Amino acid sequence: MNSSTLRNALHISAIFAFYLATMMLIPGLVDLYYNNADWKVFAASSAGIGGISALVAIATRSGPPVVSTRFTFLVVNLLWITFCVCAAVPFYLSTLNISLADAFFEAVSGATSTGSTVLTGLDTMPPGILLWRSILQWIGGLGVIVLGLFILPFLKIGGSSFFKIESSDRYDRPFARFSTYATSVVLIYTALTILCAVLYAYFGMSGFDAINHAMTTLSTGGMSTHDQSFGFFNDQLHWIAVVFMIIGAVPFTIILVMAMRGRFDALRDNQVMFFLTYTMVFAVILTIQLERTNVMDGTEAFAHATFNLVSIITTTGYSNDDYNLWGPFSAGVFLIATFMGGCSGSTSGGIKASRWIVLFGVVNRALEKFIYPNAVRPVRSGAMPIPEQVQFVTLMYFCTFGLLVGIGTLLVALTGADLVTSFSAAITAISNVGPGLGDIVGPAGSFGPLADSAKWVLSFGMLLGRLELFTVLVLLSPAFWRD
Amino acid sequence: MNSSTLRNALHISAIFAFYLATMMLIPGLVDLYYNNADWKVFAASSAGIGGISALVAIATRSGPPVVSTRFTFLVVNLLWITFCVCAAVPFYLSTLNISLADAFFEAVSGATSTGSTVLTGLDTMPPGILLWRSILQWIGGLGVIVLGLFILPFLKIGGSSFFKIESSDRYDRPFARFSTYATSVVLIYTALTILCAVLYAYFGMSGFDAINHAMTTLSTGGMSTHDQSFGFFNDQLHWIAVVFMIIGAVPFTIILVMAMRGRFDALRDNQVMFFLTYTMVFAVILTIQLERTNVMDGTEAFAHATFNLVSIITTTGYSNDDYNLWGPFSAGVFLIATFMGGCSGSTSGGIKASRWIVLFGVVNRALEKFIYPNAVRPVRSGAMPIPEQVQFVTLMYFCTFGLLVGIGTLLVALTGADLVTSFSAAITAISNVGPGLGDIVGPAGSFGPLADSAKWVLSFGMLLGRLELFTVLVLLSPAFWRD
Repeated sequence: MNSSTLRNALHISAIFAFYLATMMLIPGLVDLYYNNADWKVFAASSAGIGGISALVAIATRSGPPVVSTRFTFLVVNLLWITFCVCAAVPFYLSTLNISLADAFFEAVSGATSTGSTVLTGLDTMPPGILLWRSILQWIGGLGVIVLGLFILPFLKIGGSSFFKIESSDRYDRPFARFSTYATSVVLIYTALTILCAVLYAYFGMSGFDAINHAMTTLSTGGMSTHDQSFGFFNDQLHWIAVVFMIIGAVPFTIILVMAMRGRFDALRDNQVMFFLTYTMVFAVILTIQLERTNVMDGTEAFAHATFNLVSIITTTGYSNDDYNLWGPFSAGVFLIATFMGGCSGSTSGGIKASRWIVLFGVVNRALEKFIYPNAVRPVRSGAMPIPEQVQFVTLMYFCTFGLLVGIGTLLVALTGADLVTSFSAAITAISNVGPGLGDIVGPAGSFGPLADSAKWVLSFGMLLGRLELFTVLVLLSPAFWRD
Repeated sequence: MNSSTLRNALHISAIFAFYLATMMLIPGLVDLYYNNADWKVFAASSAGIGGISALVAIATRSGPPVVSTRFTFLVVNLLWITFCVCAAVPFYLSTLNISLADAFFEAVSGATSTGSTVLTGLDTMPPGILLWRSILQWIGGLGVIVLGLFILPFLKIGGSSFFKIESSDRYDRPFARFSTYATSVVLIYTALTILCAVLYAYFGMSGFDAINHAMTTLSTGGMSTHDQSFGFFNDQLHWIAVVFMIIGAVPFTIILVMAMRGRFDALRDNQVMFFLTYTMVFAVILTIQLERTNVMDGTEAFAHATFNLVSIITTTGYSNDDYNLWGPFSAGVFLIATFMGGCSGSTSGGIKASRWIVLFGVVNRALEKFIYPNAVRPVRSGAMPIPEQVQFVTLMYFCTFGLLVGIGTLLVALTGADLVTSFSAAITAISNVGPGLGDIVGPAGSFGPLADSAKWVLSFGMLLGRLELFTVLVLLSPAFWRD
């Protein structure tokens, strides 16, 4: 690690921080309009961060960087940490009067599109703070799409690049030039958000709620402007949310191909089909259980099961009911749903359909190979053989995910939280879902009562999960820092 | 699958059942001596099973089998199922008056050296039944050693064969001929059991308790003759148990080399060192936590932490205290300890030190490889490079283990058990440990109150775990049954 690498990385992060500082003016202006004292906080944060980042950007100016793997790892980590730290400033300074751990947790949960919150009393909260949370999730979602499309494939992390290639190969490269590609991503992401907001407003949300929820739906973030989350809204709005959460969890390349070329057959992608299938299977099983145990009746059971499961599987994290109270089997279903994830290349977190496809394929083929050791049939996704390297990295991802959940559980339990809370909090953080199980971190609770140390641990967990584990873990390897 | 394969497999199982039937005479004679009515049950079971198995053995006589991979898989599964079914007969017919699910669960828990029990009131139970449980565990432990030494390497399951080779290579093949080898295994296993029993008796156990506990210690089984388990005995006995549980969890090849050649340096095996290290680390962490939270004081904390953790990590399953009451962090430590396991090639279950070595090695090397994609340094265990195939199978083992725990948790929760009970029961079954967490399956509870359906699920889980997952899962592959 030489100093020019660090210098270049700092430069890029400073420029990003400057943009973020200007974004703070939006909630500032809203608070000013509503005559809320927090406008000063946003103005001061914006000025402070803007000023410092401008200075750092100027001080670290130099020639174009050498884009090595190591440099890219450093930049990605530094960008996200900058994002979280800057995002926390308005929370910390605001009239909310929360601790540093709370402010940072809320910021990380926003920036990583997780959606866990330490706040309660959202319904009466100043609009600026609410809007800032939604903006963070929206930017975070966009950041993850960019990461998945342009950066992770270069870093060969997590094997998801294979699935990206699969889609691009089949539909050609949708755009010849990078800048056109990147611009289209932003435009279509924005257009979908506006469409979602319009539908929300049309079917009954206030304008402010519609804008906020559209931003946190498309990004599969899940922060709400109400303590009741979607329990505050009518059934039609639930189904609109289901549709847009699913859109958020589909690979963005497929959304692009559909939007730009009208190729709706792109949805017949192996990963998308697999994701929709397991979501459906979970919803049907849960519906039957709710019926069987007399928690709810047919249509209501299906609607509630579907909304909450789609929310958890896509790693959005809205809820419209306290599914904690649906019994231990339902809790188990939600716990496992928390691992599942949407598709790779989308805004959703968790393990993701692509990896499940690889895992089931690998195990299935291995069983055959134990019987016929000389048979050589490749593991496939649809018609495509999955390279051994992708299989290996995917298996390693599962194991590392499990290890980190174990360590996270222990660390949270060390702060005194009970086992279900610790375990589900660790998973929900690393999967970037939002709610866990139990009274504290469950859908009807808030992460507020957890110890500050637990919040730091979970903040780190959310970052780890958002950056596909290895992007962060690489920094722990001594090899990374060697010259 | 042709009929001669099945015929040969049935023949071998029938011969095994016949031997098992003769073993039933031992608890029968003991009950006769103590004038307990159950002697008739054992006599009848022995006669019935002996007769039927003799008939089947005669009917299925044929030429020597073609020992294919598929044949071996079939035989191993059939042998263990025969073992469990025959073992359940005396439980079902005895004066205990338990359901079929209970009898089968107890038999599987015995045969797989798990040690979970549905029974309470052990202290006043007829000696025959108690002895039968211990004999099952002892035979089961021997069976697992034989499986690990001679059969799994042939089936290339789970990658543990690599670690076997590592030990044998370093110390030569300890015996030139298979039959000498097999005989020595039985002799030394027996000798160690007798030594353990003598020490137990010398330091205060009754003769009957000493024999029973020696059999369930060496086999890392964990069934006791008292509801309080080792809580019934004094501190010296706890430490003797710790030593013999560890002996049970060390690769049997190493025990052989030490016993036959006096080569105590064999203990400096990489896997053994790793196993002892993590056991120590867990014990120290837990001791500090018990001190810190004022549950116990220094020496007592260390003694209790060590005994119960060694018991869980070696997958024995004794307890001398209800560690459920030690707080959520301790519960988390025990939960993770339930996954750990001893060494491969021993009687212990769980994931096992060999696999942890591979996992940590793989992740560590992968982090380096993300940074320097062209570096080619192999993953090592000690000085030995670990073949890629072993790495792959090991990673797959972890993933499959996790999948099965997830499915097991859901199925147990479906029967109405709470989440901690369901989750810890699923892990403890698949790891062949014994106790889980919570009031029902925890160290102070009994599996009795679980629904019958949960007991069937957990029985299957114990078998899966004991046969290293894939040996059983292979039967689910359609390829296995194709001609």
